[in-house]
Amino acid sequence: MLKKSRQYLYWVQNSVFEGEISEAKYKKYVTELKKIINLEEDSVIIYNLRTSKYSSREVIGLEKGGQSNIL
Amino acid sequence: MLKKSRQYLYWVQNSVFEGEISEAKYKKYVTELKKIINLEEDSVIIYNLRTSKYSSREVIGLEKGGQSNIL
Repeated sequence: MLKKSRQYLYWVQNSVFEGEISEAKYKKYVTELKKIINLEEDSVIIYNLRTSKYSSREVIGLEKGGQSNIL
Repeated sequence: MLKKSRQYLYWVQNSVFEGEISEAKYKKYVTELKKIINLEEDSVIIYNLRTSKYSSREVIGLEKGGQSNIL
């Protein structure tokens, strides 16, 4: 799951990824995730921000991975 | 850090929390986090959504914790 997510998004920390992604790639990513994970045991939560205008990102402590200009 | 976060937010999975919080409580929470964590080693990322109008939340697989009507 982590390897697959790295193909579409930036690793941020632990099991958290973030990034900008087109609608088409998003659908492909979700379809592939559903094939990889065990739907009864695994859990993937996707927070979809259609614009970054009404959101901000604050890091306390160490900035590990990521592409900090996402938000 | 997890115990402190539970006082303000809902546990969702792994080290992820979410919830609605007032500006005043948010400032108190961040101040307390800064006292608890090791700023050189630990990393906390806060995604602040001022409105849920332009965002959505999708769960693939198991819905673990959380308060699903946040988004």
